[in-house]
Amino acid sequence: MTRKTIRKYTSQPVSDELLNSLLQQAERTQTMGNLQLYSVIVTRSEEMKAKLSPFHFNQPMVKEAPIVLTFCADYNRVTEWGRLRKGHPGYDNLLSYQNAATDALLFCQRFCDLAETAGLGLCFLGTTVYQPLQIIDLLKLPKLVMPVATITLGWPDEDPAPTLRLPLSAIRHDETYHPHTPESIDRDYHETEADPTNQDFVRLNHTETLAQIFTDIRYNASDCATMSKTLHQALVQQGFLEE
Amino acid sequence: MTRKTIRKYTSQPVSDELLNSLLQQAERTQTMGNLQLYSVIVTRSEEMKAKLSPFHFNQPMVKEAPIVLTFCADYNRVTEWGRLRKGHPGYDNLLSYQNAATDALLFCQRFCDLAETAGLGLCFLGTTVYQPLQIIDLLKLPKLVMPVATITLGWPDEDPAPTLRLPLSAIRHDETYHPHTPESIDRDYHETEADPTNQDFVRLNHTETLAQIFTDIRYNASDCATMSKTLHQALVQQGFLEE
Repeated sequence: MTRKTIRKYTSQPVSDELLNSLLQQAERTQTMGNLQLYSVIVTRSEEMKAKLSPFHFNQPMVKEAPIVLTFCADYNRVTEWGRLRKGHPGYDNLLSYQNAATDALLFCQRFCDLAETAGLGLCFLGTTVYQPLQIIDLLKLPKLVMPVATITLGWPDEDPAPTLRLPLSAIRHDETYHPHTPESIDRDYHETEADPTNQDFVRLNHTETLAQIFTDIRYNASDCATMSKTLHQALVQQGFLEE
Repeated sequence: MTRKTIRKYTSQPVSDELLNSLLQQAERTQTMGNLQLYSVIVTRSEEMKAKLSPFHFNQPMVKEAPIVLTFCADYNRVTEWGRLRKGHPGYDNLLSYQNAATDALLFCQRFCDLAETAGLGLCFLGTTVYQPLQIIDLLKLPKLVMPVATITLGWPDEDPAPTLRLPLSAIRHDETYHPHTPESIDRDYHETEADPTNQDFVRLNHTETLAQIFTDIRYNASDCATMSKTLHQALVQQGFLEE
């Protein structure tokens, strides 16, 4: 219950032995047909971190963390395996992207749990799918490989307070989905909206409501539409979607 | 390292207290902008399990497990919140689906880790995205809610041997992606292909190679193409994609 995102790291390095041990344990995660439809790109070089940084909107963790990990949906390896073994792989489609992205994200989250249990701190960068074409180019990702998640990893040099979460009533539905109503929204967002940090956040952003910070500023319709086109373009380029 | 999928469960019930505690702990998972773009549908009723079962190809766990959980990418709640708070939500697009599916899958995997740590056993059903329209209809999922993962959950009544995984060389790439070669594929798949269980599997399927079972039978090009169309149709219906 005290899990938190860590954005500042000490200068202590993270050994390759520890990294490999965590990756190997994470490989135990459930995976479709035991195909392990994922790969992970390990960035340790200062030069590569500096080049990755702008593609994550220059969030400082990318350059400051000892390790950056880019988790990829990967049907390239299975396709190569299939071709070399007289098979007829056909994974250039949306379902295969969905399956591989699922595998990669489950593997990523399991890795995060293991890393945090080992005392490491990490920050999950949602920006991976915002400028995917540049990341694909820099990391030399071939067809049927698509970056879906990035984490920065190191030994924690901060201890922030955990952030608020919604009550279970907001996310749990029994038997069927229960439509949200003005009353249920009031109930589920009451604590979040009453939170002093969030109220400061509203003042800082000059909005009337907390929700507007998300819907009208941070994740506004226009940005989402533009970035959807880029994401679509990247999935076409990587061979998962048709034009 | 001993994690394994559990498909057989004892008749011991899983209490709602335990389920809620695990869901609440799982809510600590990293989430985009702290928006928690997910929901979970809890299926306990025998009637609903029987109706869900065919949409998961009648895998027996669906009817036999005390609990079935369907994890959904969910922008419906945030959209309702935004609308009721004078915002202008615009999440009817591919990027928003990607973001919500990511949130839902990270939450799901964290829940799985917590459940397994509590001694529960579970099976992840990849079939969720194969017949999504039927699942959406049965669970009454509204616009901007899309099922992305299902698990069956209960107290373990079997103790299967862990299955093989690929060596790290198959999934780890340093700084940039290193293209697979016939030699690297031989190295990375040697243990898998030499495994007696997998060799039996090849005999049983009357194929020449193990890879062919996956590329030509289980996840063949024709099925993937057909199911991609259904998946696309479901994403259109739920409002995440245009026709």
